[in-house]
Amino acid sequence: MKVPLGFEVAGVVAGVKRSGRHDLGLLYSSAPLAWAYAATTNKVAAPCVVRDRALAATGAPVRALVVTSGNANCANGARGEQDDLRLAGAAAAALGLAGPGEVLSASTGVIGQPMPIDKLVAGLPQAAAARGDDSEAFSKAILTTDLVTKVAEAEVAGGARVVGVAKGSGMIHPNMATMFAFVMTDALIDQPDLRAMWARVVDRTFNQLTVDGDTSTNDMAVVLSSGRLAADQTELEAALEAVTASLAKKIARDGEGATKLITVRVTGARDDVEARRAARTVAGSSLVKTAVHGSDPNWGRILAALGRADVELDEAKVRVAAQGFELYSGEPQPFDAKEVSAALRAEDVLIEADLGVGAARGEAWGCDLSEGYVRINADYTT
Amino acid sequence: MKVPLGFEVAGVVAGVKRSGRHDLGLLYSSAPLAWAYAATTNKVAAPCVVRDRALAATGAPVRALVVTSGNANCANGARGEQDDLRLAGAAAAALGLAGPGEVLSASTGVIGQPMPIDKLVAGLPQAAAARGDDSEAFSKAILTTDLVTKVAEAEVAGGARVVGVAKGSGMIHPNMATMFAFVMTDALIDQPDLRAMWARVVDRTFNQLTVDGDTSTNDMAVVLSSGRLAADQTELEAALEAVTASLAKKIARDGEGATKLITVRVTGARDDVEARRAARTVAGSSLVKTAVHGSDPNWGRILAALGRADVELDEAKVRVAAQGFELYSGEPQPFDAKEVSAALRAEDVLIEADLGVGAARGEAWGCDLSEGYVRINADYTT
Repeated sequence: MKVPLGFEVAGVVAGVKRSGRHDLGLLYSSAPLAWAYAATTNKVAAPCVVRDRALAATGAPVRALVVTSGNANCANGARGEQDDLRLAGAAAAALGLAGPGEVLSASTGVIGQPMPIDKLVAGLPQAAAARGDDSEAFSKAILTTDLVTKVAEAEVAGGARVVGVAKGSGMIHPNMATMFAFVMTDALIDQPDLRAMWARVVDRTFNQLTVDGDTSTNDMAVVLSSGRLAADQTELEAALEAVTASLAKKIARDGEGATKLITVRVTGARDDVEARRAARTVAGSSLVKTAVHGSDPNWGRILAALGRADVELDEAKVRVAAQGFELYSGEPQPFDAKEVSAALRAEDVLIEADLGVGAARGEAWGCDLSEGYVRINADYTT
Repeated sequence: MKVPLGFEVAGVVAGVKRSGRHDLGLLYSSAPLAWAYAATTNKVAAPCVVRDRALAATGAPVRALVVTSGNANCANGARGEQDDLRLAGAAAAALGLAGPGEVLSASTGVIGQPMPIDKLVAGLPQAAAARGDDSEAFSKAILTTDLVTKVAEAEVAGGARVVGVAKGSGMIHPNMATMFAFVMTDALIDQPDLRAMWARVVDRTFNQLTVDGDTSTNDMAVVLSSGRLAADQTELEAALEAVTASLAKKIARDGEGATKLITVRVTGARDDVEARRAARTVAGSSLVKTAVHGSDPNWGRILAALGRADVELDEAKVRVAAQGFELYSGEPQPFDAKEVSAALRAEDVLIEADLGVGAARGEAWGCDLSEGYVRINADYTT
């Protein structure tokens, strides 16, 4: 997919991944980029997260992003910090920028193994030379256990575009678990507005995404604006939300071992925060996830998940539906288990729940829990 | 195992379970029993939980407990409440007691299907007639997907005994997920003291147990004292803790699909609450559980779990060990992956973590996450 005006991206093979796949990506702009950032809340944060956070605190624009996959460069002690700085510095040099302060960095992969920094530094000139306007190679270079690349786009009236690429398939939970999302737009917006808008959008999309309940040490969602085209700010926010929601669903669908995308839509909540929390809790429940995997209309597990979500609900008014079939409404509803089970065999499963206490609504996305998830994760480093 | 003085127990087949296994249990005392109770925090609570909670609020002693397995009698609307009350009333009648106010009830199994109350009522006279001092049949009558019965005992100087039976193998998480524990003692203790002691003991044991992160609508841990023998109260508390910790470990080891018991021991925490929370978070991490399943010394996942546990830690001082092998100490430690992996193939896996900020310690228990867990839970009702 073509990236928005003002951006150049690249992806190359630097030799970090034993598979020989793309593992080094660059994003560059010839002019300063406004940007905003949401990163992991994990107290064990990788050097790239710590450094990007410090750059965000300055409020200054950036010119580039360097991303590596295969090695998270996390928990590597002082060496990890040095390697991250060296990576950003080498990227700046390859791109003809002043220094690492203009370059965000993002690394994902195994924790606690020294980053093969020499290979990455050696690969940067090649990556810089490969810059272009197609997102394909860049979107590959950010993947780890993902099976597919994840790209989404939206347009804003007047011609501005939003293009996002993402990675992530495990260790994914609200507050930026192991996922990257890099969203580019050529719509004009100033940095303070972009930050506020990004926080709202991330709360409604990436923070409503859960794969396995584990949050990561490295992950982040970054939006960057080249500001080439004027755009209505409300339309821009809608476009950002469309792109990030689409990426969140692509990540859930590609969850490790996943065979189905689960969308949980909660209505009747006291407020938006509770609606979103209830939806997340259902989407993250191992028992709901295994029931969906087995196409089992076990609404009791959905009800039990709502009950532990720390939200107000009226048990006598709660309603639960799956694939449009009402299963519970204050008490169990009669349904044809075979018919509902057949409907649950779809690749897209919709669970709806009404809490019966208000008018707020929220949505969350997850995936089923399969034997494949266990196999993938039982043997990752060894 | 012989129950303590003053108790009689029974377990029979009432026909709730399609498998034809024991599904109706009774516990009885000829004299009033002091008791204390910890139950699910789930807002969707079964009628038995609601009724027992109300009985606890009166502070009155009880004389009996009726337990049923195979059907949780939860989310069944008004009928569920009526059935629970009828069950307790029928148990009282079968035992010659004044009424349901002297009888605790506990049901476990599938949610949202009407309880076959007539079968249970019909089985109660048989159960009452079968009362004796052996815990075997009673311990069977409380099981659902458990593979084995769970019984533990401890003695107090002076001859008093503590005997506990438990069930639970899935939907288990702190705050009384799908588990029952019924602990009997003939040690003398007054009811207020027993309540305070039980709250402390449950916090250190059952609330440190996690199988899959889902909490249930029905579960409870009850201690009952016949008060026949004088006992030192500190020794009694130690005996209760020994029995409940043993039961917690048995439940984790019998977790659905589990092949290993995982013990997580956290030291160096700021306080006991944080130590316990950190231990629980590691024990409950899907990524740690799958790594242990694969005998994979992936300490990065342990570190990442500590990082999201909402506890104070000093990353430069954090230490992580598995099976006694130090894997991380402020930075990755050299170790022989094959040797540690071989050690992780044991049925008992010990993970130790020091947070580097204090002197508090805590322990939690869980189990590995296997393909078997998925298979068991992907097809439970249908």
